[in-house]
Amino acid sequence: MIAQLRRIAGDDAVIEGAPAPYASDATQETLGLRGSARATVRPPDAERVRRVVAWCYDHDVPIVPRGGGTGFAGGAVPSEDAVVLSLERLDRFRELEPAAWRAHVEAGVSTATVTRRARESGLLFPPNPGAAEQSQIGGNVATNAGGPRAFKYGVTRRWVTGLEAVVAPGEVLRTGGAVRKDVTGYDLTGLLCGSEGTLGVVTSVWLRFVPLPERSAQVAGFYESAADGCAAIAAVFASGGQPAALEYVDAGALAATAAAFPAAVPAGARFLVLAEADGRDAEVASDAAELGEALAAGALLTHVATTRGDLDALARWREGVSGAVTGLLGAKVSDDVAVPVERLAEMLERADAIGARHGLRTCSWGHAGDGNLHVSFLLPPGDLPLRAAAMRASHELHAAAVELGGAISGEHGIGSVKRGELGLQLGDVGLRLHAAVKQALDPKGLFNPGKKQ
Amino acid sequence: MIAQLRRIAGDDAVIEGAPAPYASDATQETLGLRGSARATVRPPDAERVRRVVAWCYDHDVPIVPRGGGTGFAGGAVPSEDAVVLSLERLDRFRELEPAAWRAHVEAGVSTATVTRRARESGLLFPPNPGAAEQSQIGGNVATNAGGPRAFKYGVTRRWVTGLEAVVAPGEVLRTGGAVRKDVTGYDLTGLLCGSEGTLGVVTSVWLRFVPLPERSAQVAGFYESAADGCAAIAAVFASGGQPAALEYVDAGALAATAAAFPAAVPAGARFLVLAEADGRDAEVASDAAELGEALAAGALLTHVATTRGDLDALARWREGVSGAVTGLLGAKVSDDVAVPVERLAEMLERADAIGARHGLRTCSWGHAGDGNLHVSFLLPPGDLPLRAAAMRASHELHAAAVELGGAISGEHGIGSVKRGELGLQLGDVGLRLHAAVKQALDPKGLFNPGKKQ
Ligand SMILES: Cc1cc2nc3c(=O)[nH]c(=O)nc-3n(C[C@H](O)[C@H](O)[C@H](O)COP(=O)(O)OP(=O)(O)OC[C@H]3O[C@@H](n4cnc5c(N)ncnc54)[C@H](O)[C@@H]3O)c2cc1C
Ligand SMILES: Cc1cc2nc3c(=O)[nH]c(=O)nc-3n(C[C@H](O)[C@H](O)[C@H](O)COP(=O)(O)OP(=O)(O)OC[C@H]3O[C@@H](n4cnc5c(N)ncnc54)[C@H](O)[C@@H]3O)c2cc1C
Repeated sequence: MIAQLRRIAGDDAVIEGAPAPYASDATQETLGLRGSARATVRPPDAERVRRVVAWCYDHDVPIVPRGGGTGFAGGAVPSEDAVVLSLERLDRFRELEPAAWRAHVEAGVSTATVTRRARESGLLFPPNPGAAEQSQIGGNVATNAGGPRAFKYGVTRRWVTGLEAVVAPGEVLRTGGAVRKDVTGYDLTGLLCGSEGTLGVVTSVWLRFVPLPERSAQVAGFYESAADGCAAIAAVFASGGQPAALEYVDAGALAATAAAFPAAVPAGARFLVLAEADGRDAEVASDAAELGEALAAGALLTHVATTRGDLDALARWREGVSGAVTGLLGAKVSDDVAVPVERLAEMLERADAIGARHGLRTCSWGHAGDGNLHVSFLLPPGDLPLRAAAMRASHELHAAAVELGGAISGEHGIGSVKRGELGLQLGDVGLRLHAAVKQALDPKGLFNPGKKQ
Repeated sequence: MIAQLRRIAGDDAVIEGAPAPYASDATQETLGLRGSARATVRPPDAERVRRVVAWCYDHDVPIVPRGGGTGFAGGAVPSEDAVVLSLERLDRFRELEPAAWRAHVEAGVSTATVTRRARESGLLFPPNPGAAEQSQIGGNVATNAGGPRAFKYGVTRRWVTGLEAVVAPGEVLRTGGAVRKDVTGYDLTGLLCGSEGTLGVVTSVWLRFVPLPERSAQVAGFYESAADGCAAIAAVFASGGQPAALEYVDAGALAATAAAFPAAVPAGARFLVLAEADGRDAEVASDAAELGEALAAGALLTHVATTRGDLDALARWREGVSGAVTGLLGAKVSDDVAVPVERLAEMLERADAIGARHGLRTCSWGHAGDGNLHVSFLLPPGDLPLRAAAMRASHELHAAAVELGGAISGEHGIGSVKRGELGLQLGDVGLRLHAAVKQALDPKGLFNPGKKQ
């Protein structure tokens, strides 16, 4: 097999097994997930991806597509009978058309590179999931990644006008393209977005951009309780503006990171709301003032960042929250659920209660405007009984989210870590159609088996 | 059959055959399309829709879902063996949650009602296809309708967070819901959006809104040629702002409507570009000034509308373009293609050349920012040879759009009028997956047979 794959993809493209980092994704740190594989293939171009898929499909070998390996759902963690198909060498911009607010990029280009090259052209690529230096645009598409700015700008899907993918049994599918509007066929682009590698391998993506906002500002509000913070979030919804982002950090996560906050955190603060305004120079000033007013009601203190330095400090702090929380006990089980925004306070209470019932320290933060919570159950590393308890708590969390009219995954996906839970949310008919779509596109079930099901 | 349908849907819900308006849609006026059907059913609620579908599916009777009948693709035109399933009586708001920027509405609610009720709550439902008083939200979803504001806000799909649909063999599918973010299953919501009634019957839709812009302004630029106008469109793209809409009207359409334009049209004007800015009070003034500057380069004249009265007058004029063009010779064949925005000028030339080759007067207007052209071939009513020539011209138009990297339908859909043309754009693999999806969701092929294929 190795010899045949070398012949197909090139001698330097094939590694036996799945050495680090190819055996794991971001769940290695959280859940200790690690897989193995028969081989890891890193094809140099899309045609070689096609041939590898064709060979695997013909030989009944499962294919695990791999982007940057930053996923939180175990989607890129391979199974021992599989071939890992890494897109890292497909790292070219096939086209960059600033005049038309557009690019055509290969799947292996990092999210940060897309963002940077757009910015250099005076354009914004809105999706900003957290691990942008390492995650790939193909991975973003495969997970339909979100991030804070999804509140105003929507998730990755909205910025994809077409894609190229290798589908069963090893053929090239092209959907859409450089055109911004297209209702010709069924929305296969949308079907591939968020499919987590289970319907095909994305090799390139047509992206659209918007003009870069002239500036942004952030307003932070500190509250005595989650209830007060959620009331402030409601006030932002009622204020008549559309913030670019509307984030929250709960008591536990705030405690872990208060010392690093770029300004003084008021005593007694047990909830933080962070709102961002972006746009024209003049607009941002008045929008930030309006956000400040909305967030001030019931707040212990509000803090405004408008200079580049202050904004960067706040962004660095926000990026550090996840690591600081992990540092509290040394490990954590991370979850990602979403609820209708007015149920956020209720979902926060439920998460705490579920954690407590399982003897777990719980904290959370996330994309409040989208009702998207990242809940962490904290553990000492290697405490297997507690990890098992955390897995049970996660399951209850998913059921609670669905009960409140929400989703068991807001942005990280199902992968392998939420395996078997689709039925909680989708219902019998949804589950049946989900399976029918999988069967239609991947009749042999060789694309990332066991994931998203 | 009539008796059985009456038992299922209610005595008052079933009409024999398909009397007007149920036998046709907007293609009656343009192409003279008219169908017939065995029965027309207007169920009073979603459960009755389900039962009618179940009965039809069981008895191998084709189902033609019908919204407002404003479609331009013949999608709602029935075939003689079918039952027309009209959603008109599903006209309730099941939920309106202004505080969460959201509503859950039944499929038969008119687009205008959605827009109005959102506006009364200080919110914007962005999609604004042209026949809003008559078209239904279910029809908008089924066609993934666009409109001028899609340039900034995206098409209908972006505003749908979930839906309820009756799918084969008569079961209720619920996708998403009130939650704004959800990557749990494959994107069945997106699959139903734009499926033109061929995958199921939409009975309700969860919509999300944004805060209502404080105001808007329109800038019109008149040009001596399409080339000059397209250069101005490029200047708008380069200007650093995001207009809400960016429309064009070509020489022929302008000539038909110049007299009704709410200001003086300069002599020699052969192309009009209309740009809209919306947002905060302060922002709109400076955005409009910036748009004015971009549109002034190469313009014969620019005209700015900022007062409610001027804006309404311009909107009324814009709505009248289609009718005025029809009035030129009495009838027209309307088309809808999209190309990458920088190919707009080229596509306009091609459209004129194709029309000329077939001896047809041609004019067009449309959503320039999205590269979306509505091309009309003019004819005297009842001139069947010329209508046949126009159909051949349309076919060439589609091929030209695809050659330029575009789509054979930007927003009106395939319906029956572009039947057999999918392959022009989708390619073999796309076509195969399109058919596989249809087969997976509608194994008996009873949902709107012959449409979108
Ligand atoms: C610190 C941190 C912060 C994060 N913040 C966010 C956030 O704010 N929002 C958010 O949405 N996510 C977030 N994530 C999760 C993760 O970054 C995203 O899911 C990201 O989109 C994954 O991209 P990747 O290239 O790393 O994919 P991988 O982890 O390599 O793969 C993810 C899934 O996609 C599939 N896949 C990857 N590439 C392809 C391809 N080319 N074709 C087909 N399938 C493919 C894989 O099989 C797998 O199922 C965060 C992760 C970390 C570590
Ligand atoms: C003057 C005018 C201007 C227009 N401008 C625009 C524009 O700017 N942008 C644009 O996109 N369109 C435009 N259109 C086209 C049309 O208004 C849209 O396509 C609209 O979305 C159709 O909605 P409807 O309810 O009238 O659907 P119908 O015409 O009744 O049906 C359209 C298709 O959807 C299916 N369908 C309808 N309801 C359902 C349902 N509940 N479940 C499943 N399938 C269903 C039908 O089977 C059919 O295939 C315009 C039309 C006119 C007449």
